[in-house]
Parts: sequence; structure tokens; C-alpha cells
Amino acid sequence: MTEQPSSFAIGVDIGGTNTKFGIVDKRGNIWYQDRMRTTDHEQVGTFVEELHEKLQPMIEKIGGIDKIKGIGMGAPNGNYYKGTIEYAPNLKWKGIVPIAAIVHEKFGIPAILTNDANAAAQGEMMYGAAKGMKDFIVITLGTGVGSGIIVNGQLVYGHDGFAGELGHVTVIPDGREHWGTGMKGSLEAYCSATGMRLTALELMEKYPDADTPLRKLKAEEIDSKAIYDAAMQGCGLCKEVFEYTGNILGLALANFVMFSSPEAIVLFGGVTAAGEMLIKPTRLAMEANVLPIFRNKVKLIFSDLKEADAAILGASALVWE
Amino acid sequence: MTEQPSSFAIGVDIGGTNTKFGIVDKRGNIWYQDRMRTTDHEQVGTFVEELHEKLQPMIEKIGGIDKIKGIGMGAPNGNYYKGTIEYAPNLKWKGIVPIAAIVHEKFGIPAILTNDANAAAQGEMMYGAAKGMKDFIVITLGTGVGSGIIVNGQLVYGHDGFAGELGHVTVIPDGREHWGTGMKGSLEAYCSATGMRLTALELMEKYPDADTPLRKLKAEEIDSKAIYDAAMQGCGLCKEVFEYTGNILGLALANFVMFSSPEAIVLFGGVTAAGEMLIKPTRLAMEANVLPIFRNKVKLIFSDLKEADAAILGASALVWE
Repeated sequence: MTEQPSSFAIGVDIGGTNTKFGIVDKRGNIWYQDRMRTTDHEQVGTFVEELHEKLQPMIEKIGGIDKIKGIGMGAPNGNYYKGTIEYAPNLKWKGIVPIAAIVHEKFGIPAILTNDANAAAQGEMMYGAAKGMKDFIVITLGTGVGSGIIVNGQLVYGHDGFAGELGHVTVIPDGREHWGTGMKGSLEAYCSATGMRLTALELMEKYPDADTPLRKLKAEEIDSKAIYDAAMQGCGLCKEVFEYTGNILGLALANFVMFSSPEAIVLFGGVTAAGEMLIKPTRLAMEANVLPIFRNKVKLIFSDLKEADAAILGASALVWE
Repeated sequence: MTEQPSSFAIGVDIGGTNTKFGIVDKRGNIWYQDRMRTTDHEQVGTFVEELHEKLQPMIEKIGGIDKIKGIGMGAPNGNYYKGTIEYAPNLKWKGIVPIAAIVHEKFGIPAILTNDANAAAQGEMMYGAAKGMKDFIVITLGTGVGSGIIVNGQLVYGHDGFAGELGHVTVIPDGREHWGTGMKGSLEAYCSATGMRLTALELMEKYPDADTPLRKLKAEEIDSKAIYDAAMQGCGLCKEVFEYTGNILGLALANFVMFSSPEAIVLFGGVTAAGEMLIKPTRLAMEANVLPIFRNKVKLIFSDLKEADAAILGASALVWE
């Protein structure tokens, strides 16, 4: 790597299972990084203690805390305005957790929090596929569906800091019930990895005579990767899962386009490993459902950041904002 | 009125039938106003000529063109970035009309254009129900359904200037075909005055025995006002039209809330004359379809600007931005 820059940011990605963190310069080079288990900590206090312990040697190597401009953090249900994680279903810390204040106290430098999908969007804008764009939307397709929206070069937080919950918009009124929220027909109910698995199970039940390698698997082994692998081997039912998922995703994206008219929609997360298999039906459905003035204008692209790096980069990017 | 301010803006609202214009100060006082027929002009050139002729005496009374900071215009399909009206189905001027350039040339002062719903949103932010708010959405419910979205105190234009076409989002996949766009199940297909009329006709056909005053009217006399009047007289079928419309509007608003988390949604336009009859089912459906973190947070309010004034105020507000 080149000459050492004069200042750095810490990026922390708090996930349900693991927390990744690193020291990053403004150009997006990750100088040091490590990870720890989020689940080891019943309380946020000991979590921040371990985070500090693990980061301390890295901070010293880089030249001390004076070189660090701040700590950016991405977390599920993270609220930017308040610096709190609020009622995150996938974390052990219950209620409202003032994590930015605790981290600020412990490290003695500014701490900024946002939700994980917003951090991803910030990272894409500074270092990724959306570099230089002022209007775009990141959709994270993993166990759940998240989103980060950029308008006029800024993250959209809304009046309360909770904007961008596009996984929970209703796409099919009275459609599939969501296992967590109880709401019907949401984007996440269909287009998350969990949703795709349910679609596969539904199709297997609907077409009991359809021959598919999925039948050789236990129910719990049927996941988006297994569906993709089978589709690549020519399984018609699995291809239909992707058609179905892409149809619904594209319809939802069309609605988002008519809201904020983004230059691009960046897809990110585990489900995107399916590549063209997913993006082809998605693009067709998106174009079919927008007004003519939006047609063939919006780029539908995959993130080109490595997933592990992207989370740290995105969180660190909050500091330079 | 109080002492004359030192500078003014001209606001011009270009509608399919009439164009309203006026001279406004920064506090939102309309000093002079008038209207002319848009439809009298096959060409935009003669339209701007007449507009200039009609405005000239007003400009002189106010102290001359030097007192006017600029001309703000709202028009259907108006593009803010390019200053053009593009393919507006309800205007005689076809193709791409560079109206901001023509007006700038004629008057010799800055001319700013946006679409009519965006102008309404700007007006609500400066002078109306959304005064002081930084995140809100205006939905115009008239012959069509339009929208203007404010995020971080700024109008959302998107990368091409066409953002905020919320009337055309799909609410009911494979639903009612839109008479103009051919798209299926859009918000406008149901919740515009035109859509409500279609709902009434459908219900009359579905329930041939239902007794409703609408049956005494000719088909072309059945409009949102007639439906409202009959509902107020106790007509069950007409009440159902409002229930049905509110259900779909509320579902769409819930999706918008999860996009930009606005402090308020301001409803504006002819259909809002129905008041509680419309807003009650709308509010219920909106709350039922948002995630708990958004529940009972978003104000659903009517514009309190007089409709004729609002259009002029909104257009003039562009100048002070």
C-alpha cells in the first residue's frame, strides 16, 4: 500500500451473528480488520468492551486515536438521528440501546450509527458501483430484504430516522403472510432467501409430479443456494422459483423508480449470487411496470464490493460524510 | 396589506384548461392575480405572448421588472432540470416544449419550471399545512393523481427530474386497466376522481338491485361530487365507493411511508372535498399496512391553502428556493 494517510475512520458492521470491524482510509483501503461474535454478549456493555480491546492494538499501529476521525457503525434497526438500536429482532439486546453514546464514551471520538442497508448504500456511493451517483437505491437481498436510498447525494432518513424499509412494502395485497411481521404480501415475504425457499416448497407441493433435485434434500437444506444449483443443472421448477421471484422484485422496483427516479438500483447480498438467473426476469418486470418516461433508463446492477469489505467500508464512510 | 416588500416573485400554474398567475411576496401574499385559457393557444409562443401582455400592467404597478426576482411555473410533465414540458397528454403543445427558455427570453428574468404537484409541495412547505416540515409528501387527488415529495427540505427530482409519479405505482397487480397508460392496477386507476367514478359504475353493475340516487343520473353526470352527495344522503353503495377508494389509497400511502418516512402526507385537490368520508378508511388502511415502528406517527392532513391560490403560491415558491 502507498504512503500512510493522515487520518482514518473505523467501520463497524454489527450483524446478528458476527461483528466485523476495520480501520479504513478515505480512499477505501482497509488497513486492518478483524471480527468477533455478536452473540457472545448478552449486554451491549461487554460487547463494546470487547470491541475496544480488539481495536486498541490496531489503533496503536496506525498511530494512535488522534489519527481516527470517528467510528461509523451499521446495525439492524440502527437509528441515525438518535444513535440507538431499537427493537432489533435479530440481536440479544432488547428495547432501545444507545450504542453510539456508549461507543463515544469508550473511545473518546465521534460515533455515528445507521442501519446496515443505509451503511451499504453509503459504501456503494463512496467506493462501489454507485460511485459518483447522486440518486440511487441499494436493495440488500439476504435472509431479509433491506434498503438504503440516496437522494441528492444524501441518505434518506425521513423525519424519524427510519426511512427505507422497502423490504416491508406490500407488493401483493393479501399475499403471503410474513413469518415475522405478520403482514401480508411484503417484498421480503417473497424476495428474501427465506421467501425464495417458501416459493420452492410451495411449487413442490403444487406440482407433486415435478422432478427436482430438491426432493432429495431435507426441508431445512432447501435454501436459495440449493435452488440456484438445481436451476443451473436444468431443474425447471427451480428456474420457475427465480422467474417468480424476479417478477415480484421487478414490480416492486418499478414502484421505487416512480418514487425517486434513481440513476441505478444496486442489488447486494447473498441472493445476488444467482446473477442473470435472477436479474433477467427482474429487469423485464421492472421495465414492464414503469411509465414510458422511465423505461430503459435505470441501471440494474450488482454491487462489486466484496461482501465482507463492503459492510466495513460502508460503516466507515459515515465518518467522512 | 402592510408595507410593500422590496422583491416579488411571479407564480404561474399551467393547467390543461386554465392558466393562473399572480405576483407574490415572500410571505405568501398574492398582490395581483389573473387567469387565462391555456386552450386558446395551439402554440406555446402565443401562450407566452398573452401571459406577458397580461402580466405587464401588474409588473408596472408593483414597481417594474427589477422588483421581480424570477418566474416560477408549475405544469403537467414539467421537468425542473431541463425547463421543458415533455409529452404532456393534457396540453396541446406536443413533444418537448422548452418553455422556461422562452419565458426567460420574453421577460428577461430567471424562469424555473417544475411539475404541478411538485409546485404544490413547495407551496405547502413555504405557506401551507407543511410549513416548517422537512420530510413530507403531497398527494394531489383530482382528475388524476399526482405527487410531490420533500426529503431533507428539498423536492425529490431524481436523476432525470421526473421523480414523484406516485399516481402510477402499481397497487393491485393485474388490477384495473388505466384508461391512459394501459398499465394495470395503478393508484390513479382507483383513487383519482376518474377512478372513483369507475368504481361507482362497477358497483352499480355488481349490485343491480342496490338502490342509489346515482341511477337517476346520466352516466356522464356520475362524478366524485355526485358520489359524495349521495353518500352524505345515506347511499350505502356510494359509501362503499369511499371505503374502497380509501382502502387502496391507504395501502399505497403505507408503502410511501416505508420509503421516505415522512412527518406528514398532505392531501390536496378536488377529491379531498369528501373530507372524513375519504380520510377515515384511508387512515385505517395506512396504519394497518405499515410496520409497527411507523404506526400512529404520520399525520394525514388536508391542504389548508385555497386551491386557486395554492397553485400560484407553489409556483412562486420555486423562485425563493
